[in-house]
Amino acid sequence: MLIVGELINTSRKPIREAVEAKDAAYIQQIAKEQAEAGADYLDINCGTWVYDEEEIMVWLVNTVKEVVQLPLCIDSPNPKALAKGLEIAGDGQSMVNSISAEKGRFEQVLPLVQKYKTKVVALCMDDAGIPETAEVRLQIADKLVGDLLAAGIPQDDIYLDPLIKPLGVNNQYGIEVLENVMAIHQKYPQIHFVCGLSNISFGLPERKLLNKAFMVMNVAVGMDAFILDPLDQSMMSMYGAARALIGQDDYCMKYITGVRSGKIKA
Amino acid sequence: MLIVGELINTSRKPIREAVEAKDAAYIQQIAKEQAEAGADYLDINCGTWVYDEEEIMVWLVNTVKEVVQLPLCIDSPNPKALAKGLEIAGDGQSMVNSISAEKGRFEQVLPLVQKYKTKVVALCMDDAGIPETAEVRLQIADKLVGDLLAAGIPQDDIYLDPLIKPLGVNNQYGIEVLENVMAIHQKYPQIHFVCGLSNISFGLPERKLLNKAFMVMNVAVGMDAFILDPLDQSMMSMYGAARALIGQDDYCMKYITGVRSGKIKA
Repeated sequence: MLIVGELINTSRKPIREAVEAKDAAYIQQIAKEQAEAGADYLDINCGTWVYDEEEIMVWLVNTVKEVVQLPLCIDSPNPKALAKGLEIAGDGQSMVNSISAEKGRFEQVLPLVQKYKTKVVALCMDDAGIPETAEVRLQIADKLVGDLLAAGIPQDDIYLDPLIKPLGVNNQYGIEVLENVMAIHQKYPQIHFVCGLSNISFGLPERKLLNKAFMVMNVAVGMDAFILDPLDQSMMSMYGAARALIGQDDYCMKYITGVRSGKIKA
Repeated sequence: MLIVGELINTSRKPIREAVEAKDAAYIQQIAKEQAEAGADYLDINCGTWVYDEEEIMVWLVNTVKEVVQLPLCIDSPNPKALAKGLEIAGDGQSMVNSISAEKGRFEQVLPLVQKYKTKVVALCMDDAGIPETAEVRLQIADKLVGDLLAAGIPQDDIYLDPLIKPLGVNNQYGIEVLENVMAIHQKYPQIHFVCGLSNISFGLPERKLLNKAFMVMNVAVGMDAFILDPLDQSMMSMYGAARALIGQDDYCMKYITGVRSGKIKA
């Protein structure tokens, strides 16, 4: 199971301002805080810079690498920015965020996944967009996984992202994801699942409660990676509890140690 | 989905003292508070009184009935106390807590379930005790459900209780329950599942966190009833979120109303 720390993303105002000011110290502080809080990967996303994304990606990756040893999740819809980030990412096995079943994106991102032997976030969408129904999501997932396997990517490197839609729009959008994850997991037992959680609660009150509960539900059905804010102690406490409950924490030692250090709290 | 309020149980000191003092007002206050907090059933358990359990059961049921209209969950290992409670339980369809695959208990409790057309909590244990392994639990569950169905009890009235064991003893005890629930659910799609949660966290720190997370995980795999303290706002908030996420809350109106009234909080 793993946590991808989501905070280094230029769609967040403090990060955008730090990038504009070339304030390496602030970026490094956020990187260190996420590592300290238990992130396994750090996401690096500067997709809001349309014209000089590649240059900023290089600056961000180098800035982060100076202070943390975690592997990085290079996050962009732009294959050129991905390539620049992966080339210098360093420590451990990088993750690419993301490939999808969109034809152009698949063809352009796949060679990078192959060249750098990365893990890869695979979005369940194709050229028709985000699927309307659970059935179509399953079909896209099946094709996407099949194509990745055929291209030599090991199941163990694939992190399928079902793309969470807001429960407030349709109250079946939560259970559909859980059922899809269970079904795909049965067919491809070694595959991983990842998601960002915040979409589920869009438009509803007390969003953090829904986000936490949906994280725990996904763990129960086999999702084993989340892109989230590791500085959210309440979320991370729930994650620590869920990891123990699913039998992924020998003797509950991570859980117990987390409680003792004050990181995990009821 | 439903919540069985667990507080009226003479193993709890304030309830025992209220029963000893025949303090009906205190019992009634606890009954009303549980109803107000969202309990669907109220458990009535005076099993700590070995010699006059039947008499106390009658007093408790009558005392509670004076102030709440909720159906009752008559809870005893003693068929005579169950019979006394069921005879006067009143409002709605009662629940019997519990039958099991123990031969004597099955034979003595079944006629009560049939006579009063109750819902019934069916414990996954037999004359050999609580099963050691998930495989044995599945076998017991299968036999128990089969025997209840053969006796004419509808699937929809059966609440199978897997009997939760402490995660601190074996870190597979959580995932085994989730897998058992999924497997039984596939075979008997109309059956219900119920459990008490607190055993899962026995011996571990920050127990409420584990209890909440395990409740949410169980909802994800199909458990739809819990015996718990409905005055625990944090637990009930998580339950409200989980119920919405599983698609059991039309337009999320119960969730939204709960947040507006202050009952549901992140």
